Amino acid sequence: MTVTFPYGFTAAGISVGLKSSGKPDLALVLNNGAQPQAAAVYTSNRAQANPILWSKQADIANTRAIILNSGSANCFTGQFGYETTKLTAEAVAQQLTQQGGVVVTAQQVQVCSTGLIGYGDQAMRDKILGGIPELFKAQSLDDLTAPEAILTTDSVTKTALHESPVGWRIGAMAKGAGMLAPGLATMLVVITTDARLTAATLQTALRQACDSTFNCLDSDGCMSTNDQVTLLSSGESDSSVDIAEFTAALTKVCDDLAAQLQADAEGASHSIDIVVTGAKSTRDATVVGRALARNNLFKAAIYGNDPNWGRVLAAIGTTDADFDPYQVDVSFNGVRLCSAGAPDRPVQECDLSPRRTLVEIALNAAADSGYSAKIRTNDLTKEYVHENSAYSS
Amino acid sequence: MTVTFPYGFTAAGISVGLKSSGKPDLALVLNNGAQPQAAAVYTSNRAQANPILWSKQADIANTRAIILNSGSANCFTGQFGYETTKLTAEAVAQQLTQQGGVVVTAQQVQVCSTGLIGYGDQAMRDKILGGIPELFKAQSLDDLTAPEAILTTDSVTKTALHESPVGWRIGAMAKGAGMLAPGLATMLVVITTDARLTAATLQTALRQACDSTFNCLDSDGCMSTNDQVTLLSSGESDSSVDIAEFTAALTKVCDDLAAQLQADAEGASHSIDIVVTGAKSTRDATVVGRALARNNLFKAAIYGNDPNWGRVLAAIGTTDADFDPYQVDVSFNGVRLCSAGAPDRPVQECDLSPRRTLVEIALNAAADSGYSAKIRTNDLTKEYVHENSAYSS
Repeated sequence: MTVTFPYGFTAAGISVGLKSSGKPDLALVLNNGAQPQAAAVYTSNRAQANPILWSKQADIANTRAIILNSGSANCFTGQFGYETTKLTAEAVAQQLTQQGGVVVTAQQVQVCSTGLIGYGDQAMRDKILGGIPELFKAQSLDDLTAPEAILTTDSVTKTALHESPVGWRIGAMAKGAGMLAPGLATMLVVITTDARLTAATLQTALRQACDSTFNCLDSDGCMSTNDQVTLLSSGESDSSVDIAEFTAALTKVCDDLAAQLQADAEGASHSIDIVVTGAKSTRDATVVGRALARNNLFKAAIYGNDPNWGRVLAAIGTTDADFDPYQVDVSFNGVRLCSAGAPDRPVQECDLSPRRTLVEIALNAAADSGYSAKIRTNDLTKEYVHENSAYSS
Repeated sequence: MTVTFPYGFTAAGISVGLKSSGKPDLALVLNNGAQPQAAAVYTSNRAQANPILWSKQADIANTRAIILNSGSANCFTGQFGYETTKLTAEAVAQQLTQQGGVVVTAQQVQVCSTGLIGYGDQAMRDKILGGIPELFKAQSLDDLTAPEAILTTDSVTKTALHESPVGWRIGAMAKGAGMLAPGLATMLVVITTDARLTAATLQTALRQACDSTFNCLDSDGCMSTNDQVTLLSSGESDSSVDIAEFTAALTKVCDDLAAQLQADAEGASHSIDIVVTGAKSTRDATVVGRALARNNLFKAAIYGNDPNWGRVLAAIGTTDADFDPYQVDVSFNGVRLCSAGAPDRPVQECDLSPRRTLVEIALNAAADSGYSAKIRTNDLTKEYVHENSAYSS
């Protein structure tokens, strides 16, 4: 199980022909709790797709359902595309009203889309609207299809579960394999919980969890138009909820998903964790880590198993973070190759053949241990270029 | 001729074994004018190589010579590397003093290096210092070797000449094929002139010329540790100099070199000119152009001859420039594919097979024609990744 692991949720995934492969491409998650509450964070890109424009204006706190499609991002498709999103929300609301006997409005439906930008025609609209009755029929308490229906270039489904000692649960699914950059990625995430929490509390916990996880994942520096992370609470668990414990568990789930997104990044041959320590502030540590995560020369070197610490210093020297490049130490996979801005151990001592790569940067900018940050990224490979030159998105 | 085209200059290029290929790797440009004046701009990267550290503290206005080596960047090579640069300047000054009978100090010598970062050992020092007497013997009034001696991964030499109607001249040489990013690129440029101008005037003209040329060239978003553009005046021309005319000519020379750098970018298969119009400020136009020039997904699409205007909007939507994504028009090679953030002409009408690619972005943010900017970049190719994973720099 994934998003239906907590009590009070059903989900489904079906194929309506948006993907030429015929694979599942339409997913639904229903919050059947008596006290449904929800929160979401959206892409910080100002170029936003129609589903983002819809979902941001909707009544997120009282969300009853989220419908997600792959195969088309419905982005930059004009007024027609926005109407498609609105009609989709209305159709889901109508089904929900019929199903529960209580009036549900379109404003209580979040819509997510992923796939090609600039495509969203009548055929796409007809396929989605036509598929909604079947999607409702397919809903299940132990669904496994929804995580598959949201994939695009992903090679595997991404899910995570958590159960607290006192009984409340978290379930989650995610998609994303490219355009991964802070605030957010080309990423759709649905997280469910039966922990009884208000929308305001959920929003605070979600923002906090995203800050150190999804927002510290930077695959290719490219920020998407369609990203959304949604957290739904059914409130169906009777257990008492410690907010700090819940936020920690939520962060763990998000971190788990972020690692899965990193591992499945398009064309990547190395998963690179950049750990920056000894900064004068968390902001400085993050800025340094992100500058490196976006440096093509560094990322191409890792692809070639070259522990090129010179490119690390060249990349982080472009930032405004407060440190002296001639005090910086750089280690690759535990071997310190650069000490105080000068060569240390021979590069031959360092083995970059494993997929997991750890780059540690000690800024030595603070008298005490200082602040730190961890940024996840990937190498830049010929396969990445191939995939993103041959696949239009 | 290149840098010896104006009166008052000699130059030379020789091989001292820094390059394993045995190709020329040490260059010299001497300003033999009676009233030598000079100006320079340096990388804005805070991670700066030893030659940059030396040259920035030297007496740039009264520069008599510039010595340049390829094969080693002498960057992050510790105190030993800095001593090598200082000894190099001292050796050149000693030769100059002997040659002219007038005392020249090391402070009047600029030093530039390019090549591998983190390498700069005793062998490198010995080769450079040992080669300086031969370099002086090789100096010539019609040298053609210096432009070759500064190349690294460049496939061709880059030079430019200008002669004003009243007689003063400009000559220039450049190197750079990767790590090209605003402020500046992995780029060494020496520009000579016999126009009689003070160091202060040269500095103002050089900054202005660089702003719209080298600083609008962004090959791979990676900023170098060793960049330097130096402008030397011998003052040997008797012609009167109109400052505006000189600055325009200097800008034209820099623009010519920037286009040559763009055309020779590592692994590139398309030279992409991004023209942004209708902005509320020049800064906004530049920010938008640079965001696109650094977007890997956009650059990979161009490699695949895919006029992916959706990725253009997604890339520029991440900026803080003042515009509405739903008012933006995007054209590829003259075909408007996106109008007001929605599809316009069919992408099939657009042919991206030529190397030269023009991407026009009309922000439509200003009531009148607005401000504009032109940014030069390249596509992201498998060959770029190969070259930068196999070649350590």
